[in-house]
Amino acid sequence: MRAFFAAPAVLWDDWAPAMRAACPELDLQREGDPQGFDAVLYAPGYPEDGSAMDFAPFTSARIVQSLWAGVERIVGNATLTQPLCRMVDPGLAQGMVEYCTGWALRAHLGMDRYAQDGVWRNEIVPPLAAERSVVVLGTGELGAAVARALAGLGFRVTGWSASGRPVEGIAVLGGERLDAALGRAEILISLLPDTPGTRGLLDARTLSLLPRGAVLINPGRGTLVVEDDLLAALDAGRLGHAVLDVFRTEPLPPAHPFWAHPGVTVTPHVAAETRPSTAATVVADNLRRAMAGEALRYLVDRARGY
Amino acid sequence: MRAFFAAPAVLWDDWAPAMRAACPELDLQREGDPQGFDAVLYAPGYPEDGSAMDFAPFTSARIVQSLWAGVERIVGNATLTQPLCRMVDPGLAQGMVEYCTGWALRAHLGMDRYAQDGVWRNEIVPPLAAERSVVVLGTGELGAAVARALAGLGFRVTGWSASGRPVEGIAVLGGERLDAALGRAEILISLLPDTPGTRGLLDARTLSLLPRGAVLINPGRGTLVVEDDLLAALDAGRLGHAVLDVFRTEPLPPAHPFWAHPGVTVTPHVAAETRPSTAATVVADNLRRAMAGEALRYLVDRARGY
Repeated sequence: MRAFFAAPAVLWDDWAPAMRAACPELDLQREGDPQGFDAVLYAPGYPEDGSAMDFAPFTSARIVQSLWAGVERIVGNATLTQPLCRMVDPGLAQGMVEYCTGWALRAHLGMDRYAQDGVWRNEIVPPLAAERSVVVLGTGELGAAVARALAGLGFRVTGWSASGRPVEGIAVLGGERLDAALGRAEILISLLPDTPGTRGLLDARTLSLLPRGAVLINPGRGTLVVEDDLLAALDAGRLGHAVLDVFRTEPLPPAHPFWAHPGVTVTPHVAAETRPSTAATVVADNLRRAMAGEALRYLVDRARGY
Repeated sequence: MRAFFAAPAVLWDDWAPAMRAACPELDLQREGDPQGFDAVLYAPGYPEDGSAMDFAPFTSARIVQSLWAGVERIVGNATLTQPLCRMVDPGLAQGMVEYCTGWALRAHLGMDRYAQDGVWRNEIVPPLAAERSVVVLGTGELGAAVARALAGLGFRVTGWSASGRPVEGIAVLGGERLDAALGRAEILISLLPDTPGTRGLLDARTLSLLPRGAVLINPGRGTLVVEDDLLAALDAGRLGHAVLDVFRTEPLPPAHPFWAHPGVTVTPHVAAETRPSTAATVVADNLRRAMAGEALRYLVDRARGY
């Protein structure tokens, strides 16, 4: 089985060993006659000269496996006639749990209080997690996993979602109780998707409902936040800090005020990256299915676009 | 029931409401005729003029309850003839779990990689916790709690202690296998006590066994570390970072090289502070026992000194 690695060169060092481990029988190449490949592994940013990917020469490929969850950049590519599969990485929810737990603990413990300036600041002992109220917006797969992990560490966790979809062991408030949820959010974590109902949900009014000094962690969608209102809430001391992983424009432009604001920590959309170590097993499974003529997993419906 | 608060004034704002909640029938005071008190709550640093505490005038006190775990500063006080009780705070292990988990995740996620300088550094995706090997030195009550919490988040956890005392669900290596444990410690957390066997245990030889770039988290005892060897290991890149909460001299002197070293984060002995919110219930229980003439909990044996 031979597969062509149609992905930016920077990804090779992670993916090549991961695929070797998950699929020892695979011959993964970055060069060669397109007709000689049984499969194409694709990631956005390829080809690196900025041209559109041309799938037409890969006449023998039985599958184009995306290495990214989103396929919006190639689903309309007219040269793509082979079966296209999305990436559904089992490591994604776990990565999200680790990101949210880590940043929530950093805020909870007040780590940034300890400037390395020779001053022994031991007067303030942080409260225990049981005395810290965390609200998770969004109770889908990711939100539920994050809420359960934080509750497992002892935090007082409340969930909120438009549907009020329940999470075992967690108090979840439904749609109209958003204001009540925000009112108790010493740490607010959003895993809401981008929908008409969530766009601009965090604006001046809703930010004003947070307890004074609250910390926002947003690894969900950048459209959640009205950026000017967020900056105003930080400047007013209403919001204590914001850890943002997603933005309306990515990469976040170097001149964007978020970079320079002391109340904002920018992380570069890393909370829920595909991890080759876990994703490679998904790729290996699909490649074997393609070779055996079996049904492919996460096959994209071109009409629906996902 | 009346108790005298023999503790630095800075503690009053936390302790007064915590005691009111845990023991509504208690009349806690900072002034008054010593003979009128049934109990004394004591913390080091009182009196604040630096003189030794004089317990002799408290002739009616049936108990002196320490608000700190350590009683070494008063156990030899000749004026102290009343029954003396240590503080055993149920929040201490939880606080230690939160500290260790938070700093381990900060190292694991590589949070400090994201300088707020306008550069979108998304090339490096941290591995999942399942791919990160953490070693916990010390498998007593605190070490076991920390090891279990980290394993619960998905980390690959190994314990080590001189006795090899087992921890449910965790692989624990015994005494002579220290070198093997260190060899796999991408993150090394020490909760070892201060004993002749642990003093200077982390020296040039043992630090050289760590994987390159390892992170040390030490909220245990400051005597564990040979300080010059630690600094040399950081300068050589062998050790990636050290988060230190305990020191041979505390407060850590302002001129100590740990403060200025970019590879060291100093926290001011806060990992396992007594929390009034949880400790107040211990105090309340002991005060009621004293008033009822029942056996006191955590009574200090003056001959042994603890």
